[in-house]
Amino acid sequence: MQGYLHRNIPLSAAMGVQVRVATPEHVLLFAPLAPNINHQQTVFGGSGAAVATLSAWSLLHLRLARAGLEAELVIQRSSMEYERPITGDFEAECRSAGDGDWQRFATLLERRGRARLTLAARLLQDSAPMASFMGDFVALRGK
Amino acid sequence: MQGYLHRNIPLSAAMGVQVRVATPEHVLLFAPLAPNINHQQTVFGGSGAAVATLSAWSLLHLRLARAGLEAELVIQRSSMEYERPITGDFEAECRSAGDGDWQRFATLLERRGRARLTLAARLLQDSAPMASFMGDFVALRGK
Repeated sequence: MQGYLHRNIPLSAAMGVQVRVATPEHVLLFAPLAPNINHQQTVFGGSGAAVATLSAWSLLHLRLARAGLEAELVIQRSSMEYERPITGDFEAECRSAGDGDWQRFATLLERRGRARLTLAARLLQDSAPMASFMGDFVALRGK
Repeated sequence: MQGYLHRNIPLSAAMGVQVRVATPEHVLLFAPLAPNINHQQTVFGGSGAAVATLSAWSLLHLRLARAGLEAELVIQRSSMEYERPITGDFEAECRSAGDGDWQRFATLLERRGRARLTLAARLLQDSAPMASFMGDFVALRGK
């Protein structure tokens, strides 16, 4: 997964993202402070949003692959709540949506060729939650 | 402003951000596709969010500087609406909040040492709007 991200989304390499866990149920990405620092010596909010987006996108990508569903994934909307400044290396974690949500999503995608799923992720520093991400992703079939 | 961003927020250099306009009323940042591309050959949503965040942060930074208000700026909350895929180089544009909002913000910051302002920005490709950003920034005095 890490090679895939670095090759296809070069910003992930520029941010120093390392994949710690990448399963269809759980994605955990690590990012070092240095390439993501701001003028206050904390993590630049834009970096945090980008790593969180990557974690959610990766989870959905892995889940679609396991289900054998080929689809284009597009992010439609996202929000970040920055709860406290991150002063060091950090992680972005995304866990799968509930099984009911996933089933509705997969069924709609197969029937109509288009479905939307909301995923939550969070940023952690030393396992403590620092920021929350929510993203709406649309999957489109048709190839 | 470009040197300041590249030195203090290295991700801005990694994203190839160039400052086109930087005044307290109007910030326009350019970013090339290549370092911000994704697996679909369009702009990675996380890059778009990061450049939009930079544009809003820069505008507020310049406005505080012009007003002679020294304050630490923290992003508290942000949202992105991705309206359509960006297929090439793009820009992030932020224009100043209304004068009334700015006055309230500046007055509160002087009186209480803390104030919040919401700023909107958008992503453009060839001058066409592609995505909308909203961010709540908190300014803190005390040095």
